[in-house]
Amino acid sequence: MENVHTLAAFNMGIDTHQEPVVYMREDCHVCVAEGFNASSRVLVTNGSHMLIATLNVVERHVLEAGRVGLSKIAVQRLRASDGDEICIGHAPVLHSLSHVRKKVFGHALSAFEMREVIEDISAHRYSDMEIASFLSVCAGGRLDLDEIISLTQAMVACGKRLTWPGEARIFDKHCIGGLPGNRTTPLVVSIASAAGLTVPKTSSRAITSPAGTADTMEVLTTVDLPLDRIQAIVAETGACLAWGGAVNLSPADDLLIRIERALDLDGEGQLIASVLSKKIAAGSTHVIIDIPVGETAKVRTRQQADRLASLFTEVGQACDIFVRCVMTDGSKPIGRGIGPAEEAKDLLAVLKNEPGAPRDLRQRALHLTANLLDLADNTGLDAAMRKAVEILDSGQAWQQFQRILRAQGGIKALPQAAYQHRQLAVRSGVLMSIDNRRLSRLAKLAGAPLDKAAGLRLFVEVGDRISPDQPLFTLCSESTGERDYALEYYRQNQDIFVIQESV
Amino acid sequence: MENVHTLAAFNMGIDTHQEPVVYMREDCHVCVAEGFNASSRVLVTNGSHMLIATLNVVERHVLEAGRVGLSKIAVQRLRASDGDEICIGHAPVLHSLSHVRKKVFGHALSAFEMREVIEDISAHRYSDMEIASFLSVCAGGRLDLDEIISLTQAMVACGKRLTWPGEARIFDKHCIGGLPGNRTTPLVVSIASAAGLTVPKTSSRAITSPAGTADTMEVLTTVDLPLDRIQAIVAETGACLAWGGAVNLSPADDLLIRIERALDLDGEGQLIASVLSKKIAAGSTHVIIDIPVGETAKVRTRQQADRLASLFTEVGQACDIFVRCVMTDGSKPIGRGIGPAEEAKDLLAVLKNEPGAPRDLRQRALHLTANLLDLADNTGLDAAMRKAVEILDSGQAWQQFQRILRAQGGIKALPQAAYQHRQLAVRSGVLMSIDNRRLSRLAKLAGAPLDKAAGLRLFVEVGDRISPDQPLFTLCSESTGERDYALEYYRQNQDIFVIQESV
Repeated sequence: MENVHTLAAFNMGIDTHQEPVVYMREDCHVCVAEGFNASSRVLVTNGSHMLIATLNVVERHVLEAGRVGLSKIAVQRLRASDGDEICIGHAPVLHSLSHVRKKVFGHALSAFEMREVIEDISAHRYSDMEIASFLSVCAGGRLDLDEIISLTQAMVACGKRLTWPGEARIFDKHCIGGLPGNRTTPLVVSIASAAGLTVPKTSSRAITSPAGTADTMEVLTTVDLPLDRIQAIVAETGACLAWGGAVNLSPADDLLIRIERALDLDGEGQLIASVLSKKIAAGSTHVIIDIPVGETAKVRTRQQADRLASLFTEVGQACDIFVRCVMTDGSKPIGRGIGPAEEAKDLLAVLKNEPGAPRDLRQRALHLTANLLDLADNTGLDAAMRKAVEILDSGQAWQQFQRILRAQGGIKALPQAAYQHRQLAVRSGVLMSIDNRRLSRLAKLAGAPLDKAAGLRLFVEVGDRISPDQPLFTLCSESTGERDYALEYYRQNQDIFVIQESV
Repeated sequence: MENVHTLAAFNMGIDTHQEPVVYMREDCHVCVAEGFNASSRVLVTNGSHMLIATLNVVERHVLEAGRVGLSKIAVQRLRASDGDEICIGHAPVLHSLSHVRKKVFGHALSAFEMREVIEDISAHRYSDMEIASFLSVCAGGRLDLDEIISLTQAMVACGKRLTWPGEARIFDKHCIGGLPGNRTTPLVVSIASAAGLTVPKTSSRAITSPAGTADTMEVLTTVDLPLDRIQAIVAETGACLAWGGAVNLSPADDLLIRIERALDLDGEGQLIASVLSKKIAAGSTHVIIDIPVGETAKVRTRQQADRLASLFTEVGQACDIFVRCVMTDGSKPIGRGIGPAEEAKDLLAVLKNEPGAPRDLRQRALHLTANLLDLADNTGLDAAMRKAVEILDSGQAWQQFQRILRAQGGIKALPQAAYQHRQLAVRSGVLMSIDNRRLSRLAKLAGAPLDKAAGLRLFVEVGDRISPDQPLFTLCSESTGERDYALEYYRQNQDIFVIQESV
């Protein structure tokens, strides 16, 4: 049988992010006996906790003999304390990697093969490079309908699945993203749940955008909630606005999203599986998907949107969930704020019916809510719209939003960014368009979404007549480095705002 | 302008293999000012040396304030000594990564785009994940002819290019691999150069096999030779058997091969570009490509082989190099040894015309040499074959091989593996077939090619009648861990050797 080697755990105090790293001395008997070298993949066990890690080899003075160094994530996953007896061996040959190679070579994966890949990823058995390879060959329309269905089902199977006792119908709403500032979800959830629907909303953090709903809600309240708390909140209020990752719904998705973010990749099949696996795991039965369509949005053409909508609907049917896709205008940013805190300001203004509240954000939220209410009651869109407007205008939605936040642990004060730079226009004319992608990039370079207060506040919208020295936006950042870096990017990309002298 | 931050260099004594890692304290002013966190990509500069590295964040006790820790490869590439003033900033947005995304989404890259990707990879600006993504979406036949041509030319352009003064025609030979033990190159080089051809052979190390020609030759002599030495050796002997990486021919290839190895990936376009870029950079004008075809070889069908041969020829034409592909039998392993030292033993036996020398290895080497001689002189294959046989049988090839090795720095004694396990047959019958892929895997698990003495020595060949307790092979390894691991794999894969009771 295979040899078992043990070394004493030592916390290296090194944060390697999600990929676990173990450190062994170059003269370590385990390295010598097993033929390990830097970048070997090794199996590391502490009692009942096990993981596959990447090896870094260290000089003798870095680590005492008889010890194995562990990076922060390795310490966490192994529940290791210094001195624990850690067993080390060759990483097993992962059978599922042969499925990844099959996909590399252009062959479709069976449901069983997809399940094996996702199980191994969920169990943290893949290196970052291996996940990157898998995601890259699944992106760009390379997953067929059956593969998207099996990917969705595999992702559901690898995590918890929520049930909502006593509720036959569970409603949800999701935007596929690509529009900066498009923070309708908290509005839709507040209005629809005020109307009596059960909307236990669990959201992701941003993948490639300056803010996801979870990032924005985290500015206002606690979103990192355990399952029993979420269930209690929904029982009390009919809704929640929580982060999905904390309840271990589709945990593979969070691991995949991390690599997608590093590669700035957001594949179609992956997108559908990511969205629907979270919905199914959350116990949803009826879902509205907002698909913004525009030249600089995530989906650029109506044709692309139709294809995506049809895939969403078909995958939904195969997975027993009713999906309605709503195409919306994706030609320009929504609201005035971009980044978690700035978007939170906008949605509070809409909920409170403040005079300066962004009308476009309000209008989109009402349109989506009407679709959700119509899906529930089949009263027709016009009647549903009147109902939604009434709930928002009467303040019932604002009351409901506050109820949800109090149930989640209270309402936080909005943070202020340490550095605020007001950018002025240098020419006059009409603002013809704003580039969503590069505007998002600007907000990200300023530090969003990791810095909650970072981002942008716009003072202009498409169609406005602009005078020189009129403020275009305020750039908010928490460090001078990020501020300067973002402004340098803006100087090189001033045509994010297309201003034309005469129309 | 962007802020410039400096910290004092500190060698962490950590080997992170090829991906440079820098370590900064969690309270470091640079992290705070720039908004860095674990896994951020950062630009690191030491005088005129610059690289992009991945950040690991460390606790305060790990590093003194004001210091930046550097992994081994970062120290090397930055030429850094402890205390050097290191500048740190955000990694630039790599424009070429948008080309990778374009490829992810299924679009062909222009020559210019391909060139930008390869330039950035050559300059070590890509993370391992980014290289993994690029390689994965280029594998599986996803590069079209024009892309393979531009990849080849980009790889040539990013490295040195050798010239051979006074030689109009430079000959070379390459096997695309997949057959364990198929070490014909040193034989072909010796015979052809003894016949008067100029054959300055630079080889790769193994990608996914238990040994490459460079690995095997390193057992016998020095292969890590600077360019001026290679030129002197070729001027003296008409040939060399060096490692290509040491002379910086197509340096991108070595970086790509490292990731291909980790992912066990070996794409078609990448393969052609890798082979031909090395040949063109080495100044070759006439090249024979050996394509073994067999069910468990790298190329499984004649149809696949034809496609590969036609691509090789077309890319060669576009790049002004004459390529002749030779399809050979790839149904079974060649020779008796698998792994660097064991293959070296076989080729010495053939060169010395020893009675026990493997006939199949001899025959293949003669066949390929005849093709090369015919390519040179156009005398017809039969006459070329007679000439090759005469040179080998008369001992001229052996004399020439020794001349080359002496010129490269002398002949080394063969290493012996620390652990040798003789595996016996458990049943009788006729050996019907041997699985090349799993046999290679077995040799790799035993430690080949990193451990030169590790690998296998076969005692049987396809068609032999086997008795119980007859030795099938000896497994050679340098550690008990690898030995036991390989034997465990063999126990689960005994059908690598298909033995049938009655035929």
